[in-house]
Amino acid sequence: MISELDVLAMDQADPLASRRAGFALPSDKVYLDGNSLGALPRATPQRLLEVLQEEWGEDLISSWNRHAWIELPQRVGEKIAPLIGAGPGQVICCDSISVNLFKLLAAALQMRPGRQLILSASDNFPTDLYMAQGLSALLGESGCRLQQVAESSLEDSLDEQVAVLLLSHVNFRSGRILDMQRITAAAHAAGALVIWDLAHSAGALPVQLDECDVDFAVGCGYKYLNGGPGAPAYVYAAKHHQAPLQQPLSGWMGHRNPFAFDPHYEPGEGMQQFLCGTPPILSMIALDAALNEFSGLTVAQLRSKSLALGELFVDLVAQSELAAMLVLYSPAEASERGSQLAWSHPQAYGLCQAWIERGVIADFREPDILRVGFAPLYTGFADVWVAVESLRAVFAAQEQLDPRWQQRPRVT
Amino acid sequence: MISELDVLAMDQADPLASRRAGFALPSDKVYLDGNSLGALPRATPQRLLEVLQEEWGEDLISSWNRHAWIELPQRVGEKIAPLIGAGPGQVICCDSISVNLFKLLAAALQMRPGRQLILSASDNFPTDLYMAQGLSALLGESGCRLQQVAESSLEDSLDEQVAVLLLSHVNFRSGRILDMQRITAAAHAAGALVIWDLAHSAGALPVQLDECDVDFAVGCGYKYLNGGPGAPAYVYAAKHHQAPLQQPLSGWMGHRNPFAFDPHYEPGEGMQQFLCGTPPILSMIALDAALNEFSGLTVAQLRSKSLALGELFVDLVAQSELAAMLVLYSPAEASERGSQLAWSHPQAYGLCQAWIERGVIADFREPDILRVGFAPLYTGFADVWVAVESLRAVFAAQEQLDPRWQQRPRVT
Repeated sequence: MISELDVLAMDQADPLASRRAGFALPSDKVYLDGNSLGALPRATPQRLLEVLQEEWGEDLISSWNRHAWIELPQRVGEKIAPLIGAGPGQVICCDSISVNLFKLLAAALQMRPGRQLILSASDNFPTDLYMAQGLSALLGESGCRLQQVAESSLEDSLDEQVAVLLLSHVNFRSGRILDMQRITAAAHAAGALVIWDLAHSAGALPVQLDECDVDFAVGCGYKYLNGGPGAPAYVYAAKHHQAPLQQPLSGWMGHRNPFAFDPHYEPGEGMQQFLCGTPPILSMIALDAALNEFSGLTVAQLRSKSLALGELFVDLVAQSELAAMLVLYSPAEASERGSQLAWSHPQAYGLCQAWIERGVIADFREPDILRVGFAPLYTGFADVWVAVESLRAVFAAQEQLDPRWQQRPRVT
Repeated sequence: MISELDVLAMDQADPLASRRAGFALPSDKVYLDGNSLGALPRATPQRLLEVLQEEWGEDLISSWNRHAWIELPQRVGEKIAPLIGAGPGQVICCDSISVNLFKLLAAALQMRPGRQLILSASDNFPTDLYMAQGLSALLGESGCRLQQVAESSLEDSLDEQVAVLLLSHVNFRSGRILDMQRITAAAHAAGALVIWDLAHSAGALPVQLDECDVDFAVGCGYKYLNGGPGAPAYVYAAKHHQAPLQQPLSGWMGHRNPFAFDPHYEPGEGMQQFLCGTPPILSMIALDAALNEFSGLTVAQLRSKSLALGELFVDLVAQSELAAMLVLYSPAEASERGSQLAWSHPQAYGLCQAWIERGVIADFREPDILRVGFAPLYTGFADVWVAVESLRAVFAAQEQLDPRWQQRPRVT
């Protein structure tokens, strides 16, 4: 039996414990939803105030040069690169995952003439599928088709029709990690390119884009990277794919010389060609500031803590009456899971709401998933203890059956 | 002769003079570049701090509901609507102008089967042309072609091949206003749709989208709307065009029920279908706050002051030795100009730099344009006086010939 004292000892022994002080967490809550929206770094408000008052307020338009706003997409990209196993000059911060996927899908199709298929998992995060559907509707079935198959059938479905394989590294619902190295090699063996979505992996577990010979990737800034609500996303393109591509969202920031005001588009070199419109500087500054919280840490340290937090949650469930009520939807083997756990229960929505009322923030995912995320920078072992004890109390009082939880609001 | 005393009297008589106190302008500068980047509203930092600390920091993920972040794109759109002559339910805030143009151009082409031509002015703002070029490269010449003609030939070039006419209401360089009503009617008579780019008009002069029977429009948040660097843009779609469209950037925020996590895209109703990925909330909050500075004002008041500022600048040039050195590139007739003036001079770049060193912030546009913008919310008549006196001093000392201005940096 693991006791509360054991758990407190885990926090005391945690080499990352001091990092928690860098985040402004509410004292009366346990936050297990950093995989939806990362917490606020304490340094972010001050940095944004500086940019507002000293840069925008004082130096106005000249800040694009004087404070190097114009280079912010590249600078933030280079800060993200070590978290995803990318060497320099391959990552740039811009737009949203959705918009970036459109750029990459269209470019990848152009790179594989004669092939029209985008292959993806039917349980991929919906916006990834939607963007492929949008491109397909625009180009027509003869130009682009999306094939959605079960995760388990992906490799068998790779053939000479597949132009690009579009996958999430970690499944948003189950937390299952796909084998990036093996699947990328299989795609390449079939002549296809790969695009990996790192939304649920970057910042919490190892990602080795260069080592896995990945072609392209996207990821978001607002989950484990803590860049704030709707923080800008990023694009990775392997060096050998950086000759000018046919990226259709060819806005002026991607032009080789935006301020020449040339009426004809000429793509910029390297990652610049993935830029489109003027970037939202304030949101990007918040992401830039948040990335400092990773300084001095290795991804291996993050993963090690993340695994320990997940294991503790699983063990505490197993040693309590919860074991008879919750079914683990995530892979049983910790090494196959990202930094989250999904549990099935017929009243998952009510459980989530009742849990939130007791101060534990988790989330619900259709149809019956209670999902908890562990942000190794700031989630503590005691958080896990309190969360499990609260969930036991919810069940003990049958709070999940409260009539208030019969109707689901738009966002949970 | 207009004297400095006359000018001070103009400020005293200005009904908008008190609005200047709402902006954090540097005391040692004259800012005539609000048409590139609007000034910082004094209320913005406090509002952003609240959102950072009380919303993101305290309420974390639940802020999407509790603080209605999920409705922010619609809410900001409705605040912009009265500035552009749009009734309710027709404007939404999202992405950048460039990304939004791609959505609209693709949707408009689908609405005009059999027509492949996008017609635009060759002096349109480059990103507008680039996005049309990107769509054309993606669809092939048989699916989409961009035809660029001189502004003066636009109406003559409308024929049964034109699917969509893409124009800026105010030319970014010359400041010339195109006749929205007449040109829109001409496009409709030829069976074409129109997309107007309002970047250089919204917030400074009357725009009557509904009255002019405009189909679609886009605009940016960071010029006269003062939303901050790279503030999100917006889309207008006339009510009668809001049945589900084929908008190819079909991200999850545009889905009718994003949190159902349906693997198949179904467009949301009305303006929601123009959303794509998760919006950058911090940048959008800054725009939301900035729009409050327009409360209680009519667009006619803004236009009246803007015209008076421009006239004063022209008159002060005319009564000085500058008249022999600068050639007005903008239309001579004030009613044909937006809220900016463009002057040609062979050393325009050097003039601009020397002027900036004297504390007057204007901008240079290729090839030889010195451009000044008037933001009626905060530009004062005394600013214009100081600016013209400074420019006279630049010429008197021949500062524009300084060897430092021989090489141009990337951004000016």
